[in-house]
Amino acid sequence: MSQTNKTKDAQKPKLRIIPLGGLEQIGMNITAFEFGDSIVVVDCGLAFPEDDMLGVDLVIPDVSYLEENIDKVKGFVFTHGHEDHIGAVPYIVQKVNVPLYATKLTMGLIEHKLEERGLLKTTRRKVIRPGQTITLGDFRVEFIKTNHSIQDAVALAIYSPAGTIVHTGDFKVDYTPVFGDAIDLQRFAEIGRKGVLALMCDSTNAERPGFTASERTVGRTFENIFAEHINNRIIIATFASNVDRVQQIINTACKYGRKVVVEGRSMVTVISTAVSLGYLQLPDNTLISIEEMNNYPDNKLVLVTTGSQGESMAALSRMAANMHKKVVIKPNDIVIFSSHPIPGNEKAVSKVINELSKKGAEVIFQDVHVSGHACQEEIKLIYTLVHPKYAIPVHGEYRHLIAQARLAENLGYDKKNIFILTSGDILELNEDSAQVIGHAQTGGILVDGLGVGDVGNIVLRDRQHLAEHGILIVVITMGRYSNEVLAGPDIVSRGFVYMKESEDLIDEARDVVRESLDDCIGRNITDWNKIKNNVRDNLSEFLWKRTRRSPMILPIIMEVDE
Amino acid sequence: MSQTNKTKDAQKPKLRIIPLGGLEQIGMNITAFEFGDSIVVVDCGLAFPEDDMLGVDLVIPDVSYLEENIDKVKGFVFTHGHEDHIGAVPYIVQKVNVPLYATKLTMGLIEHKLEERGLLKTTRRKVIRPGQTITLGDFRVEFIKTNHSIQDAVALAIYSPAGTIVHTGDFKVDYTPVFGDAIDLQRFAEIGRKGVLALMCDSTNAERPGFTASERTVGRTFENIFAEHINNRIIIATFASNVDRVQQIINTACKYGRKVVVEGRSMVTVISTAVSLGYLQLPDNTLISIEEMNNYPDNKLVLVTTGSQGESMAALSRMAANMHKKVVIKPNDIVIFSSHPIPGNEKAVSKVINELSKKGAEVIFQDVHVSGHACQEEIKLIYTLVHPKYAIPVHGEYRHLIAQARLAENLGYDKKNIFILTSGDILELNEDSAQVIGHAQTGGILVDGLGVGDVGNIVLRDRQHLAEHGILIVVITMGRYSNEVLAGPDIVSRGFVYMKESEDLIDEARDVVRESLDDCIGRNITDWNKIKNNVRDNLSEFLWKRTRRSPMILPIIMEVDE
Repeated sequence: MSQTNKTKDAQKPKLRIIPLGGLEQIGMNITAFEFGDSIVVVDCGLAFPEDDMLGVDLVIPDVSYLEENIDKVKGFVFTHGHEDHIGAVPYIVQKVNVPLYATKLTMGLIEHKLEERGLLKTTRRKVIRPGQTITLGDFRVEFIKTNHSIQDAVALAIYSPAGTIVHTGDFKVDYTPVFGDAIDLQRFAEIGRKGVLALMCDSTNAERPGFTASERTVGRTFENIFAEHINNRIIIATFASNVDRVQQIINTACKYGRKVVVEGRSMVTVISTAVSLGYLQLPDNTLISIEEMNNYPDNKLVLVTTGSQGESMAALSRMAANMHKKVVIKPNDIVIFSSHPIPGNEKAVSKVINELSKKGAEVIFQDVHVSGHACQEEIKLIYTLVHPKYAIPVHGEYRHLIAQARLAENLGYDKKNIFILTSGDILELNEDSAQVIGHAQTGGILVDGLGVGDVGNIVLRDRQHLAEHGILIVVITMGRYSNEVLAGPDIVSRGFVYMKESEDLIDEARDVVRESLDDCIGRNITDWNKIKNNVRDNLSEFLWKRTRRSPMILPIIMEVDE
Repeated sequence: MSQTNKTKDAQKPKLRIIPLGGLEQIGMNITAFEFGDSIVVVDCGLAFPEDDMLGVDLVIPDVSYLEENIDKVKGFVFTHGHEDHIGAVPYIVQKVNVPLYATKLTMGLIEHKLEERGLLKTTRRKVIRPGQTITLGDFRVEFIKTNHSIQDAVALAIYSPAGTIVHTGDFKVDYTPVFGDAIDLQRFAEIGRKGVLALMCDSTNAERPGFTASERTVGRTFENIFAEHINNRIIIATFASNVDRVQQIINTACKYGRKVVVEGRSMVTVISTAVSLGYLQLPDNTLISIEEMNNYPDNKLVLVTTGSQGESMAALSRMAANMHKKVVIKPNDIVIFSSHPIPGNEKAVSKVINELSKKGAEVIFQDVHVSGHACQEEIKLIYTLVHPKYAIPVHGEYRHLIAQARLAENLGYDKKNIFILTSGDILELNEDSAQVIGHAQTGGILVDGLGVGDVGNIVLRDRQHLAEHGILIVVITMGRYSNEVLAGPDIVSRGFVYMKESEDLIDEARDVVRESLDDCIGRNITDWNKIKNNVRDNLSEFLWKRTRRSPMILPIIMEVDE
């Protein structure tokens, strides 16, 4: 046997963890676990575009690594049904068509996506109960009940010959959940007792001390608000996917004899999925259609709506802007934002609050939301129960990952056993050691309309330039052989200045172009690229001097056979 | 005498309050007070552009009303030296050249702006002490000491024959300020006792219960941080204009034997102004230049810098991005954000925190900032001391104004005596009555580079369109008489798709244009605008079908004499 093989034989088997997304940004969670000839993938989420990704609709992960190793990939397992964990599925299954494993509600939401794109028939799927274990190649994967801001969330225990990984998914500890059981802490403890190689734990709230409050506390606030405003119409905006929140609104509405109207596309979708799968209990004659609203007085109505993040096209924003076809905000309406603004949405939310206030509505946004993520005390609890050898903080921006790393250090973990990974890192580990041994191709693929990946850095840079300064197009028709200007130069601009009020400037710009052309012709320059560059440079300098702006300058030369 | 004159004689004189900005947005504070032939203007601020004002640098108020009544305008009085109260001065004094009245530091900051634009000689200015009263036409204006996040802030008592208005400016109540005296509550009480017609009070924090903490509490936090990190370099980002904050940093640095480096253009400007006017005490040998940093060990240094809002070009952001020429962030650096993110800046700040954390710095952002604005208990205190007949909440978005209105209602004010104004409203008032009697022209004028007002809605809409979808330009050269296509159609796009990877799409688009042209020529259409519209419509439909995108389509026809 060769030396290499001998060394291999002597080694204990190793497991690889390869995050293919989710560590450079919020969202786009997807992680591959590889042992021998088996790969299991946890989650397949999308990310929403950053501010500088102009015009981009969403971002999906680059899964080249899975495509290259397609024979190894045994399946996707999902922790819960949020977009940042399931949103890329319809794109990715077209390239990596392997079975999907998820709990019932999560699968219901995935199936809705697949159906929209006609992918339901070609995608194998299996619903798994919390507590159940499935075998995928060399792996066994156990689904463990947790709590989160969507029902049916699970953590995963991923068993391999090299050891066990516990992946929490997004979670919180809720001892008094609205629906179903509390997180299965006993199972975390049992698995921990048997020995866990690594814990991959949610970091989203790792900067926040204390304990996240129970979902049930929001219900008590609803109670108080309903009791205090028995004469007003109540409108509540929340996340469509937070079925428990909607359940509490329905319960409170019933108690106070109000009918419930549901508005907003995603709210209707999630609620109908949740009802059909038994995750939402609707007492008879509670839900009415938006058209029936007029049959009831204000104080017999609750409207549950999308738009809690100030999204400009969502139902609440349209109501606030007087652009909703069926709901008009009235003085004395009570509008509850049962949500916190996601970072980046603060101004949009504030705008909607201002508009609602101007219409006389009273807006309530304090104490009507709890987070779905574990705070520091919960994170410490999970570490203590699972007691892993290695700590791998996941889910969050770098500041959150490092905050969890510091918590782990405080719990006594050695710095060298804490790994803050970067997307693409190939972490190889077993009981003896853990280290990043290489890097897989990763990245965000931009989706714009029907185009997947046809918009990239150059296009975005152009959009940024156009957005800031607009464009100025110079068109010239020249004789192919004579090198003579036959028509133009014409100048057209968009997003630069009001053309009509800037005639002098444009006239002068045309003179600058003419001079450039004369100069080139005089110097016998016939290479049209050189002529274009000359025009661009002179024009750019002229415009900067006159306006301190740098529009994109696009010279176009047409050639005509004379 | 005519009937009209008789009625006038019978009436008590009335005062007009006309906010020319500051009520539809944060910033751009400017309010005119008019009595008879006298107008006094309070503040002259700018606003920073909203997210959808692409490429705009800043926004200044439309002062047509002042220009039309220029003979009445007696002067500008300023409450404090923040940009949203003084920033538009260099633009406005070119149209409304009247004397400026401000306290020493405020005037120092105004003069710096005037000097930059060569306007110092042509602008009359007078420095006023808190406590002093000036006469401006029919008005007397008293400057009353307050506290705020910049020194030398004042409230104004504006005395007119129709009654007294108290305008708080931006303020808080700080019983233990770092520099100078606490707000002159006794004077508020005295003026209140004599009778006040209306109170115009800062609403920024009107949604927040309780009392804003003293600036001095931040000093204690600095103490704790310095004591805890005696071996690390300390970098502190804060607002340049918060001289007291800088003073506390300097004091703490001295106590711990550290040298202070100041970095960032606006920080250097404000500090040098504050030092030269005596508002900042610099012990000898405390300040060193950034070049001297290398002569000292890390634990003997404090760097005070701009960039606390994550502004991409500010010093701290450049350090975090490894783009600062003189400062490299090192592991174990302590970076303090002595600020809260202004709404809209949360993501930018988070990005800088992530980058600093990745470089190994420890980032501290809790308990190292206090607001400069009054919370609910302070607002109630001022109402109770001033005891006005009318309440006019100012400074804040609508949600904040309405929050103050609710506080006033709770204090027993009748709804009809509380006025939430809109910019331009002409509120006429005296002891007997108050009502909005008309509307003056107002608005935000956009400044982009050297252009003031040459960018408006159409240009912005174009920029938005270009930003989202890019542009596709179709150029055709046609014979003037033959109506024949002599060159093209050529298609050029920017910000739409990668041209090189979309050759098929562009080829097909060219076919669509050719068909449109053939169609027009076949139908004998010779009006080039009609031809352009036909091309645009067909191309737009084709691109939407193929890509689900709507780039701006710009057909250009060149005509050539044959």
